[in-house]
Amino acid sequence: MYSNDGFRELERHECLRLLAKVPVGRIVHTRQALPAVLPVNFSLDHDGAVLLRTSAASELVRAIDGSVVAFEADEVDALTHSGWSVVVTGSATVVTDPAEHERLTRTGPSSWVPSPQEVFVRVEPELVTGRELVGGRSLYGVDLTGAT
Amino acid sequence: MYSNDGFRELERHECLRLLAKVPVGRIVHTRQALPAVLPVNFSLDHDGAVLLRTSAASELVRAIDGSVVAFEADEVDALTHSGWSVVVTGSATVVTDPAEHERLTRTGPSSWVPSPQEVFVRVEPELVTGRELVGGRSLYGVDLTGAT
Repeated sequence: MYSNDGFRELERHECLRLLAKVPVGRIVHTRQALPAVLPVNFSLDHDGAVLLRTSAASELVRAIDGSVVAFEADEVDALTHSGWSVVVTGSATVVTDPAEHERLTRTGPSSWVPSPQEVFVRVEPELVTGRELVGGRSLYGVDLTGAT
Repeated sequence: MYSNDGFRELERHECLRLLAKVPVGRIVHTRQALPAVLPVNFSLDHDGAVLLRTSAASELVRAIDGSVVAFEADEVDALTHSGWSVVVTGSATVVTDPAEHERLTRTGPSSWVPSPQEVFVRVEPELVTGRELVGGRSLYGVDLTGAT
């Protein structure tokens, strides 16, 4: 359904389809009471959870394990003023179950640079929202997160 | 200076030079106690402040006016595993001074779609951090915000 201000709210399955197209998104969290944002590569689990693979000693893991985070990905064409943005909001947790870790080693995201002690982080797809921008409309004031 | 984990911390002037190259970034803020992230187009003021132009009635304005937000932009090449990310953290305020509003009407960001009542929002460049990724290194666990 197209609204009259030039964006279309995306269904969950559309959000997940778009997310699957891109290799990199951004983890948004709180750090020392300030908003923080970090680009990461990722993949999607079968249930729509966002999967990251990182060093067990990474600052990212310490920052987000057990917290609610937002994961955002987008593609915006500044020439045509069109594109999409999808946000997955949910709890981030390090995968500690050995069988699950082993499964993700096979099916999860690849590591751009392997580290000796890697962990997987799942961001639960508790809230999956997204909007598609229709060409020629502004991004300004248009809440692409869909959480109006 | 290159660190030994494949990224280089960017100087403030490098961050601002990179920001000036891209038309779209993301406003990160808190919304109903949850992290929220919204792509927006922008320009930079002479002092490095991030300038947005939006409808006075927009939900974005209500959400961020008077708050500390992070503004992030990045370019990441998933093939070469290289790129950069810059974050400007600071207070977001609607420009209310008429002379300043008039100046920004001439020199500030253009509106992708004009609205009858537009306002400018400044994000003060209180903290400007960034990192450049050197090709072949992972994004995982590398804090691109520079705020280690």
